[in-house]
Amino acid sequence: MPLPSTERILLGPGPSLIAPRVMRAMAAPVLSHLDPDFVPMLDEVRASLQRVFRADSKALTIATSGTGTSAMEAAVANAVAEGSRSVVIVTGYFGDRLAQIFERYGSTVRRVNVDWGRAVDPQRLRDELKREGADIVGFVHAETSTGVRNPVKELAAITREHGALSIVDMVTSLGGHEVDLAGWGVDIAYSCTQKCIGAPSGLAPIAVSGPARERLIPCRSFYLDLKLLEDYWAGRKYHHTMSSTLIYALREALLMVEEEGLAARQSRHERNHQALAAGIEAMGLSLLPPESERLWTLNAVRTPAGVDEAAVRRTLLTNYNIEVGAGLGPLAGKIWRVGLMGASSTPQTLLQFLAACEVALAAHGHSVPEGAGVAAASASLRSALVTA
Amino acid sequence: MPLPSTERILLGPGPSLIAPRVMRAMAAPVLSHLDPDFVPMLDEVRASLQRVFRADSKALTIATSGTGTSAMEAAVANAVAEGSRSVVIVTGYFGDRLAQIFERYGSTVRRVNVDWGRAVDPQRLRDELKREGADIVGFVHAETSTGVRNPVKELAAITREHGALSIVDMVTSLGGHEVDLAGWGVDIAYSCTQKCIGAPSGLAPIAVSGPARERLIPCRSFYLDLKLLEDYWAGRKYHHTMSSTLIYALREALLMVEEEGLAARQSRHERNHQALAAGIEAMGLSLLPPESERLWTLNAVRTPAGVDEAAVRRTLLTNYNIEVGAGLGPLAGKIWRVGLMGASSTPQTLLQFLAACEVALAAHGHSVPEGAGVAAASASLRSALVTA
Repeated sequence: MPLPSTERILLGPGPSLIAPRVMRAMAAPVLSHLDPDFVPMLDEVRASLQRVFRADSKALTIATSGTGTSAMEAAVANAVAEGSRSVVIVTGYFGDRLAQIFERYGSTVRRVNVDWGRAVDPQRLRDELKREGADIVGFVHAETSTGVRNPVKELAAITREHGALSIVDMVTSLGGHEVDLAGWGVDIAYSCTQKCIGAPSGLAPIAVSGPARERLIPCRSFYLDLKLLEDYWAGRKYHHTMSSTLIYALREALLMVEEEGLAARQSRHERNHQALAAGIEAMGLSLLPPESERLWTLNAVRTPAGVDEAAVRRTLLTNYNIEVGAGLGPLAGKIWRVGLMGASSTPQTLLQFLAACEVALAAHGHSVPEGAGVAAASASLRSALVTA
Repeated sequence: MPLPSTERILLGPGPSLIAPRVMRAMAAPVLSHLDPDFVPMLDEVRASLQRVFRADSKALTIATSGTGTSAMEAAVANAVAEGSRSVVIVTGYFGDRLAQIFERYGSTVRRVNVDWGRAVDPQRLRDELKREGADIVGFVHAETSTGVRNPVKELAAITREHGALSIVDMVTSLGGHEVDLAGWGVDIAYSCTQKCIGAPSGLAPIAVSGPARERLIPCRSFYLDLKLLEDYWAGRKYHHTMSSTLIYALREALLMVEEEGLAARQSRHERNHQALAAGIEAMGLSLLPPESERLWTLNAVRTPAGVDEAAVRRTLLTNYNIEVGAGLGPLAGKIWRVGLMGASSTPQTLLQFLAACEVALAAHGHSVPEGAGVAAASASLRSALVTA
């Protein structure tokens, strides 16, 4: 199989597009994991992650050497004890995955199941914790499978009121939506590098608040043991052969996040999402979640009745070099997942998508008003520009 | 901290130097983990790993998305049951790490401790298993901390005779020394990408023989669950966001391994090791392991009495841009670890090292016969060339 000769327009659930300067940084000569010219970069990454997560000054902010799922497992392996009682809110595929990992680590999990496509009502967590206590509460900020944003601030506050520890999945929000670990009182959060942060996958940011550090448990995993990882990241004690390649890329991507500014970056993600949503609606299509519960980073677009979901995706890929994602689990065949994250969240990419989508739908027997999607999205972008 | 502006000459215990074509492959545009242009590359990597490990045709050969230690943990997590009885041979730091991970997974471990710097005598394993049986036997092929090669063929045969399962660490041997999983009857083996294979770190090859696949246990870890990983690698079922970046690099590195040929590559590692050893001895220095037990890939050089080990390393790094490794555990301060692995195993690198080492030693108060190291190494290389 040849290497790709053109840049695929990555509008799926991640990986997203990567800025040229991040790719260039990644290709710098390799340094070893203990090289005196390398280890200061770990300090820079730790400090940047602390600011991007908005974690307290005593928080541990590092990255596991794996993808987002490795950080999800690290969060659980270091905090969820065998025999503990937990509540996991399941609003989609990744809430379910989190619950599964809690169970693998021996916790008795009570699931708060929410219809896929809706955010959780915080009252449901309050009721569940009143009914019976819990040691840990797990939930997902940005549910990548449904495009739904859960109210982290409220959920973290309820968790804290009941003395439980919160573990929050921010894989699809960090760098795209507001994240405020210290302000919201989140205990443990984790993310990934290849969505809103803008680096290749292979590292996964994780944050443990100062107070929560006292509540970590002995970890069975050696690879994901946060104590050993901290000894390496902060203490330079050998643990594993950290990839300098991936750190170069993550550091450069985080620099870009901070140069843009967290607030400006969030506004960009919001603005482009609004334009996409306007275009989608003008085409007579609809997004799965109600407006107030939508992510800016991941748009779940309902496949119109009678349209072959996979065929449309194939046309977008083959004829337009555009990737969008398929639905997972019960949403397979029913939605497309259109990510606008990091370098993939631009007016160009969303207009390209809408134009291509119109043609791909027509090619598969579903006609939409000609040019309506692009026109509505352009109007939305114009209005945002005038307001700004 | 600026990115490195020159290529560090990486002669430590890994990462090793990376060929330009591997770096170029890595910088190709990102594809998603389920892209139809990407997933065939997974098949190529699986097939190549099967040949490089010389695994049987029913073996599982994939890579975990992490460093070598992630594959070490994956081997244990999928094969070592809570309450199992095991024997782990400890000839150095990595044998000890393997034993620790067995213990973390609830196995009752009996350690066969060997003096650091020596290989295990297979009779010791035979005696231990006669004394008391075991479910699993773990050992390290190439002990990176001491430069010692253990007799895998004999150890695997003894393990099999006693009906136990073998887990073998090949982190510093795969791609540099002879490895023959099927011929030797090894059950599970793992390695890394950044030593003799010649790619950046971040993925870790793992092989499970056909027969051993039947003996895998339910895995607590989700991230390292070989069943789920196989469903992704072979079945295209989403599990984690595999880094196309790292697969591009690993695939290219494996192509280079196979283009060179396994036998020729092993000979190169042997030839360059012999030249280095000749140079080291001509300088009046010595290698830690006896000649018959030495690795070709990692040379443990004794620090002469009275010489500041760290100061010499610093001089090599600062004045010659050469990295060598320090000793670990009880060998800290007592040896240098000089890796000649993958693209770092060349006549140029070893001659550069010997020349630089002579000056660095002199700078720190230890004079050696002028030019003797380079002369002896050159003679060794010349004689190998004439013989070949």
